[in-house]
Amino acid sequence: MAVSVASVTDICRAARAASRRLATLPTADKDAALHRIADALLARTPEILEANARDLEAGRENGLSAALLDRLLLDPERIAAIAAQVRDIAALPDPVGEVLDGFRLPNGLDVAKTRTPLGVVAVVYEARPNVTIDAAALCLKSGNAIVLRGSSSAAHSNAVLASIAAAEAPEGAIGLVAGGGREELADLATQDELVDLIIPRGGEGLKKALTAVATVPMIFAASGNCHVYVDADADLDVARDIILNAKTQRPGVCNAAETLLVHRDVAGAFLPGALAALRDAGVELRGDAHVRALDRAVIPATDEDWDTEYLALVLAVGVVDSVEDAIDHVNRHGSGHSEAIVTGAYAAARAFELGVDAACVYVNASTRFTDGGEFGFGAEIGNSTQKLHARGPIGLRELCSFKYVVRGDGHVRA
Amino acid sequence: MAVSVASVTDICRAARAASRRLATLPTADKDAALHRIADALLARTPEILEANARDLEAGRENGLSAALLDRLLLDPERIAAIAAQVRDIAALPDPVGEVLDGFRLPNGLDVAKTRTPLGVVAVVYEARPNVTIDAAALCLKSGNAIVLRGSSSAAHSNAVLASIAAAEAPEGAIGLVAGGGREELADLATQDELVDLIIPRGGEGLKKALTAVATVPMIFAASGNCHVYVDADADLDVARDIILNAKTQRPGVCNAAETLLVHRDVAGAFLPGALAALRDAGVELRGDAHVRALDRAVIPATDEDWDTEYLALVLAVGVVDSVEDAIDHVNRHGSGHSEAIVTGAYAAARAFELGVDAACVYVNASTRFTDGGEFGFGAEIGNSTQKLHARGPIGLRELCSFKYVVRGDGHVRA
Repeated sequence: MAVSVASVTDICRAARAASRRLATLPTADKDAALHRIADALLARTPEILEANARDLEAGRENGLSAALLDRLLLDPERIAAIAAQVRDIAALPDPVGEVLDGFRLPNGLDVAKTRTPLGVVAVVYEARPNVTIDAAALCLKSGNAIVLRGSSSAAHSNAVLASIAAAEAPEGAIGLVAGGGREELADLATQDELVDLIIPRGGEGLKKALTAVATVPMIFAASGNCHVYVDADADLDVARDIILNAKTQRPGVCNAAETLLVHRDVAGAFLPGALAALRDAGVELRGDAHVRALDRAVIPATDEDWDTEYLALVLAVGVVDSVEDAIDHVNRHGSGHSEAIVTGAYAAARAFELGVDAACVYVNASTRFTDGGEFGFGAEIGNSTQKLHARGPIGLRELCSFKYVVRGDGHVRA
Repeated sequence: MAVSVASVTDICRAARAASRRLATLPTADKDAALHRIADALLARTPEILEANARDLEAGRENGLSAALLDRLLLDPERIAAIAAQVRDIAALPDPVGEVLDGFRLPNGLDVAKTRTPLGVVAVVYEARPNVTIDAAALCLKSGNAIVLRGSSSAAHSNAVLASIAAAEAPEGAIGLVAGGGREELADLATQDELVDLIIPRGGEGLKKALTAVATVPMIFAASGNCHVYVDADADLDVARDIILNAKTQRPGVCNAAETLLVHRDVAGAFLPGALAALRDAGVELRGDAHVRALDRAVIPATDEDWDTEYLALVLAVGVVDSVEDAIDHVNRHGSGHSEAIVTGAYAAARAFELGVDAACVYVNASTRFTDGGEFGFGAEIGNSTQKLHARGPIGLRELCSFKYVVRGDGHVRA
C-alpha cells in the first residue's frame, strides 16, 4: 500500500472510499495503526534521512536560505520527535462518537447530536516535512482520510514519510499529491464532490491563490498580525516581560506579536526601558511620532507596518489614547489571531475581551500560548483565523462534523 | 433609517460597521428591537399589502404559477404570523456569551471558549417574502448584521419589510441589496473582506452559480434527496405510516422523502399495500424491476430518478438485499439531509445510524422532523447539508462563532 503516483482525482476518490471505512473504525484499530506508523518511522529512519538529504541538496543548489534549509532538515532526533508526537496523538481521546448535545422532544423523539469525522481533508503545506506525519496522524485519529500536498522543496522527504504512514493505514486513507505546482493545487481545491475540507497552511499568497479558485470549503491556517496592548493601569514589569516573550521567544510563528500599542499615560514610563530591552534582544523598532519623540533611534512606521506580519525580529510600536482606541486599532489591522492586553484595571480587561474580534484574546498573558498543544488539544494542524467551524487551534475535534441521530417509535409529523 | 439604495459594497460596509456594535448589544436591547419590529409589521400592514399587491400583479403578468403566486402572497393573517415569529425569536435565549467550554491549563491560564456573533451574514433567498423578516430577526437576535438579497419577483414586498425592520434596528444592521440579478449576486458573494458567511436558500442552480464565484464562506440551505428504508424486521404498518407521512404530508419541502427502499424479504408483504396507499394519496410511483414485478402500474425508474429531488408527489421505489445495500444506496444517491430506517432489529438500526452520512438519521420516525422548530431551536434560516460549521437546522447558535478568552497573571511562554 505505497503512495501511488496517481491523478489528483484518483487520490481523492480513493480517499473518499477510505473515509467510509474510517468513519466507523474502532478507536483501538486507529491507535494501533498510529503506533505502527511510529514504529515504522523509527525503523525506516535511514531511508527518511536519505530522501531528506536529496531535498537538502536540491535546496542548497536552489539557494534556499539557512532558515528554510533548517525547516527542511530531518535528523534522527527530529524523526524520533515526530514518532513520539504520533504516539501522543494515539493517546488522545477519540473525538468520534462523542455526544455533543442530546434531548428528548415533547413528542418523545430522542435527539443525539453526535460527533462524526468530516470525511476527506486536504492539507496544503510548505517546507516542513514533519507536517506530513502530524497531519496524517491527526486525520487518522479523527477518522478522516487525508490528501496531502506538500511543497516541491520537500518532495522526497514527504514521499517517503507519506508512504510509511500510508502502508500502516487503511488503503486510500493517506494520499499524497505528487506535483507541487499551482495546477495540482487548483485541481485539488476544486474536488468538491470528493473533498470535504481543505486546510492551507501558508502565507497570504497561498490564501489569495486558493480563494480565487477553490470550490472546496477552506479553513486557513493563516497569518497572525498579533498585538500586545499595554494599558494605562498595566504593571509595567509584567508588560515588558510579555512583549519580550510575544516578540522574541519565537519570532517566526503566527502567534508572535507584530505590534506593540501603549496607552499614552504610561508611554513615557514604559517605552524607554521596554524599547531598550527589545533592542537588546535584536528587535528592529518602527514607531509612530509619539514613540519617536521618546526614542529617536526608532524608525518611522509607515501605514503598511500596522498591517504587516513580519515573522521576524521587527516590531511596530504605537501610542493610543484609550483602550477603545486600542480595540479599534486591533480590529482594523489585526488578522483575528491572538491579541493581548496588559492591565490591572477590570474595566479595561473586560472591554478588550468583549470588543476584540479574534480567535484568542489574552489578558495579562503572552500571545504565544495560542497553540493546540498549549491548550491541551494534544496537537494541531494549524490555527484558524476564520470564524466558521474552527477558530484558533485546529485539533482533533475541529477535524470533525456531527450528525443528529433521532430515535423514535413510529413518529410521523402532524 | 430606511433601507437606502446603495451599492452592494456600501451596504456590506455599513453592515460590517454595525456588526461591531451589535456584537456587544445587550440581550434586552436586541429583544426590544425585535418587539418594535413585530409592532411595526402589524401597524404598517396596509403598506406591506400594497407593496405585495404590486409584486403579485407583476407575477401574474409574468405568468408565475399558482404555487409561486401563493408563496409570494401576504395577507393580514400571514403578516400577523410573521410578527408572532419575531416575538418567538425574541423569547429565545441569547446565544451570545454562552461559554461552550472552559478549563484551567496546568500553568494556571484560564481559557473560556465563548460564543460570539459571526459578524455579517448574507442571506440569498427566493420568492417567499417572510424570509426577509425571519432571517433579519434571527441575525439581530444572534448579534449579527444581515445583508438580504431576495428575488426580483418579491422586490416591492421585500423592500417594505426590510425597511420596517431596519428602522427599528441599529443603523446598517439590516441591509437589502436592491437588484435581483446575477451580477449583484456575484458582487455580494465576493465581499470576503466584509461578509463572514453567505447562506443561499435555493436549488442546485443557485448552488452551482455561487460555488463558481464565491469567495465568502458559504453554507447551503440546499436540497434534500431523502430516503425511507424499510428493513426486513420493520413493523409494516409503522413503515407505511412513515413513508406516507414523509412523502405526502408536505411534498414541496427539503425534508420530504423522495425514495423508498425496501428489503427484499418484506417487499412482497409490504409493497402492494403501501404502493396502493401512496397512489391513493396522489403519488406517482417509479420503481426498479423488482418493484414492477409486484406492481405493473409502477413506471420504470431511470438512473436519474435515484438522484432527483422531486419536491412533488413523485416517489422512486427500489428493493435492496440488505441494510448494508440500503446504506450504500443512501450514501451514493442522498444529499446528506435526512434519512430514515424503519426496523425492529437493533443491529440494523445501529448499522444505519453509524453508516449513513447525513445531517439527520432517523430510526422509526419520519424524515419530516428535520426542522429548527421541531428540534426546539425556535426558528431556522434553513437546513445545511454540508459538514462544516452547521449541519442540519441553522438556528441562532449556528449563526455564531466563538472566541477563546484567556486570562492570566503575567504568563509568558517558556
